[in-house]
Amino acid sequence: MGMPLELNTMIITKGNEKRLEENLFILEKEGYRLYPIDIPMDIRKTKESETRGTAVIRKLEWESEKTKITYQLISLNSSN
Amino acid sequence: MGMPLELNTMIITKGNEKRLEENLFILEKEGYRLYPIDIPMDIRKTKESETRGTAVIRKLEWESEKTKITYQLISLNSSN
Amino acid sequence: MGMPLELNTMIITKGNEKRLEENLFILEKEGYRLYPIDIPMDIRKTKESETRGTAVIRKLEWESEKTKITYQLISLNSSN
Amino acid sequence: MGMPLELNTMIITKGNEKRLEENLFILEKEGYRLYPIDIPMDIRKTKESETRGTAVIRKLEWESEKTKITYQLISLNSSN
Repeated sequence: MGMPLELNTMIITKGNEKRLEENLFILEKEGYRLYPIDIPMDIRKTKESETRGTAVIRKLEWESEKTKITYQLISLNSSN
Repeated sequence: MGMPLELNTMIITKGNEKRLEENLFILEKEGYRLYPIDIPMDIRKTKESETRGTAVIRKLEWESEKTKITYQLISLNSSN
Repeated sequence: MGMPLELNTMIITKGNEKRLEENLFILEKEGYRLYPIDIPMDIRKTKESETRGTAVIRKLEWESEKTKITYQLISLNSSN
Repeated sequence: MGMPLELNTMIITKGNEKRLEENLFILEKEGYRLYPIDIPMDIRKTKESETRGTAVIRKLEWESEKTKITYQLISLNSSN
């Protein structure tokens, strides 16, 4: 009767993001993942890589054991 | 830096559900609400009313401080 | 960077509860589990068994990949 | 039937932490707050202040509409 989910505090893209508009991206992940929404958070390519910048999730969808997030990139790390 | 959310363990429709197909409904609620998905749960018209039956949420969406759930009614309380 | 947790909507004791006082019990579970607190919920011995009654969780603790809940039994199913 | 909670992605101490041991602290907050546990996260004095370093929450307790976290400071920002 339990529902497994994963609490996430940053966005790890693994390069799977798709650009919707200028600074708006969509990313799909396996499983149900809980991300804070409307709050700036770190975005990275991999868990181990440097931060790529800051993003805000604008939409989160759970369906068929997948999580889809739509996020807005609000700042890029100048060293990238 | 915190995100307010509400943990919900049953579906309270308040009569606001819209039928999509035979036993599939969509319901929109104010605020970000966390519901278990893919798990049978009680469905009621109001908090105080008797259970109307059992439903399974198939999709959950968070956007613009609203929560939209798509649920499948799997059994109806025979007394309703 | 993700934290696995399980969203629970009822208490499944599997007979592992320990009585602290008259109607106050403590139950330890493996992993981090999110239960609603201060809200009446179903309590069962196993997932498949009939409801044993209603309980309210008064305290939840997460530590060392274990979840400990302290709950108050507020009503017993008359058929048990 | 809903339980309000707040999803937190960093520790904001507001100077209310109490030292338990060398690098182990306890902090109490109003309301039920969900923090990732066993995962490194930012620690700050206020929301607006610079990061003070990195901490890992080792224990989280919810009771009487309060959240108590026990955290280990694992690195200090060299500029503080």
